[in-house]
Amino acid sequence: MSDPLPAILNRLDTGQAAALERLFELLRIPSISTDPSYAGPCDDAAEWLVAELRSIGFEASKRETPGRPMVVAHGGEGQRHMLFYGHYDVQPVDPLGLWDGDPFEPVVIRTPTGQAIRARGASDDKGQLMTFLEACRAWRAETGSLPCRITVLFEGEEESGSPSLVPFLRAHADELRADLALICDTGLFDDRVPAIIRSLRGLLGEEITIEGPDRDLHSGLYGGMARNPIRVLTRILGNLHDDRGRVRIPGFYDGVDDLDEATAAAWGELGFSEEEFLGTVGLSSAAGEDDRTGLEQLWSRPTAEINGILGGYTGEGFKTVLPAKASAKVSFRLVGGQDPVRLRENFRDWVLSQVPKDCRVYFADHGASKAARMDTSAPAFEGVRQALSDEWGEEAAFVGFGGSIPIAGHFQQELGMQSVLTGFAKDGDQIHSPNEKYDLDSFHKGARSWARVLARLGS
Amino acid sequence: MSDPLPAILNRLDTGQAAALERLFELLRIPSISTDPSYAGPCDDAAEWLVAELRSIGFEASKRETPGRPMVVAHGGEGQRHMLFYGHYDVQPVDPLGLWDGDPFEPVVIRTPTGQAIRARGASDDKGQLMTFLEACRAWRAETGSLPCRITVLFEGEEESGSPSLVPFLRAHADELRADLALICDTGLFDDRVPAIIRSLRGLLGEEITIEGPDRDLHSGLYGGMARNPIRVLTRILGNLHDDRGRVRIPGFYDGVDDLDEATAAAWGELGFSEEEFLGTVGLSSAAGEDDRTGLEQLWSRPTAEINGILGGYTGEGFKTVLPAKASAKVSFRLVGGQDPVRLRENFRDWVLSQVPKDCRVYFADHGASKAARMDTSAPAFEGVRQALSDEWGEEAAFVGFGGSIPIAGHFQQELGMQSVLTGFAKDGDQIHSPNEKYDLDSFHKGARSWARVLARLGS
Repeated sequence: MSDPLPAILNRLDTGQAAALERLFELLRIPSISTDPSYAGPCDDAAEWLVAELRSIGFEASKRETPGRPMVVAHGGEGQRHMLFYGHYDVQPVDPLGLWDGDPFEPVVIRTPTGQAIRARGASDDKGQLMTFLEACRAWRAETGSLPCRITVLFEGEEESGSPSLVPFLRAHADELRADLALICDTGLFDDRVPAIIRSLRGLLGEEITIEGPDRDLHSGLYGGMARNPIRVLTRILGNLHDDRGRVRIPGFYDGVDDLDEATAAAWGELGFSEEEFLGTVGLSSAAGEDDRTGLEQLWSRPTAEINGILGGYTGEGFKTVLPAKASAKVSFRLVGGQDPVRLRENFRDWVLSQVPKDCRVYFADHGASKAARMDTSAPAFEGVRQALSDEWGEEAAFVGFGGSIPIAGHFQQELGMQSVLTGFAKDGDQIHSPNEKYDLDSFHKGARSWARVLARLGS
Repeated sequence: MSDPLPAILNRLDTGQAAALERLFELLRIPSISTDPSYAGPCDDAAEWLVAELRSIGFEASKRETPGRPMVVAHGGEGQRHMLFYGHYDVQPVDPLGLWDGDPFEPVVIRTPTGQAIRARGASDDKGQLMTFLEACRAWRAETGSLPCRITVLFEGEEESGSPSLVPFLRAHADELRADLALICDTGLFDDRVPAIIRSLRGLLGEEITIEGPDRDLHSGLYGGMARNPIRVLTRILGNLHDDRGRVRIPGFYDGVDDLDEATAAAWGELGFSEEEFLGTVGLSSAAGEDDRTGLEQLWSRPTAEINGILGGYTGEGFKTVLPAKASAKVSFRLVGGQDPVRLRENFRDWVLSQVPKDCRVYFADHGASKAARMDTSAPAFEGVRQALSDEWGEEAAFVGFGGSIPIAGHFQQELGMQSVLTGFAKDGDQIHSPNEKYDLDSFHKGARSWARVLARLGS
């Protein structure tokens, strides 16, 4: 039989309007996983995907977990078996006031780089996972089948630490194990050059609460003498980095290797510009370790960041209160061989060593994952690289990724499976921020990219 | 004519139920001044006080200001002219969840030290100002008049920096100027010993907002390289005090004198116990400058406290965000000759000197007042001291006060008038905190105390 790819790509070109409407339906479901009050919408999103997968001929079902449900589907036949992963949950939308419209009422907007879909989850990750389903839909419509055996796994807790994921992978290892995993939750290197991830940072999430007096106090009556938890917290967190931007926690850099020369050279050739990258978000210069390049700070160096802090009176006006407690959310991006378990202990010990008398400290565990590195010499990586290069007209690059996509590590450890991570998001997509968007270009060429990838991996 | 005092005290004893109902009416009005949405209730409280004063025979009126209204009243005759000051506005009630009942539905509760009135403002300052009105009411009812000429001034912005006060004092200096000011907004030294204030700390309120990126960022995509405003803020505020508890702002201690030996000796004799004082709020030891006594830390040393801090994601769960901004409310208690204007400049310069590239800093001014010291050798102080000692059966003490009652300084500077500050609040009243209360004992003996003070000052 002749190569069906040209007809499949043509079908994707002519079916863009219908594809967009399908994505809009999914984007209208406010599937925020970190807030328990949105459990219902998360369930609705899972149901919607089950129906969507069945309409493409997959045998699909919703699988309950202690948290948000998983969606598992099977389709196609043959020796080659691919597992596709994506997540249907999204980040919270606050601060809501900074959105130009309802985060869950998707609209097509004009941007300096063309048309885009504005909605929470448009880029992370609903728009991306739909590029793969659209490719499958076109393959099925054109050829009556899929080019290989495909298992789909959609998760609903990616934005909240994936508590149910590993137990689920272990319980269904035989059903889910495939030759290779395809993960669509990352971006292009820039607006033109497609990228395949060679390394991912891990993530450690911690929450600290420091309690002092047993009630809020008047700073006039007690100020100067009573312990103030906000002072204790800011003193500890203000001490987290030294003057050169290095993290002060003992043992923090254990397992962190310097970049090998080949990779350093390859990254140098990417022509990355700090000024351009940061200029799009109102900054101008890299603020990390002062002896590391911008790309190292983003891709190959570990971080410690304070993601949230709250204490005392924060309303309008002023209140001279000494609060009973103060708390902060702190996260660490991990690289190389950093051990999240050891690091969590070291962090807590380091905090406790600085807590004065009359204070109590409570820690909350918000998940942990190791960093991951892919074996890009595996043949499948070359197939994907060529498929992406064909679609985008630029050589796909093997890059590092500063974010944490623990799933790749879990597939490796639980199912002994390599992961190819690629995706079509852009730096300006504002994922996790107000006015998240996904370019129509990313959505359409993304679907065409997957059609090409399936053609190469299936043959 | 025979001494009317015994009959007046008897009238106060027999009229307690009616007095309590009058106070409850005032406590039911949610006159929070710092929150603009409560401007209406503040106006209602002023109206209620005008009617109350008229019912006691005062010529009373509400006076508009650019902020909350003042209440001014005149009554009595004679050479001696006293000005009584109190404030009808109250602190916000958050965290509302920690109240055992509606903050604006006063109830009588049982406490380890007896019965008390629980409501926002019960102790600060509605209950206290009503002790004076009840004394006037009894004097008027028993003698048909007041023992001297009395002017009453009630303010509605004491809890929000008193922006309208000084202009009002200047505009009505001739009307308000008296021989002496009586201010009822302070407490007993302990549950038995009445106190008259010899020194008050001043207050400086500042709000800092630090902005970095022009939107919230994903810490995976930008973490390590992008400037994080929470890190900048905690680093600066964590640096506010040195290891011995001293404030690091240059020039902060200019104008701060050590305690004179006589006062140090007098305070030593008060038998103050850090453990007992702090034990009532779940603490055990003084956390201020390590070379100062607890009373010095409370009464004669300046402070720098962080009263509120907010940045990033503080909801349930976790969000790996690098926020666009972070802010904090900081207040300073001033003593001796510290200059609030200079100090504000020094603080802002000190903050700016630590702000890195790519950050913008905004400051908001939340008011300033100098510290004050009374000339306790003036004869009126002795009269009040004797009246209080008679009522409480313990020698009244001349004490310092850690809070800031700027009105005393303003009366001195604007009207050339000395102020006698005394009151009947107790350490456990939890003013500015959930479950604020005022002991029935404080309310009743407070009214009797003022009846005695008026007898001595009027004669």
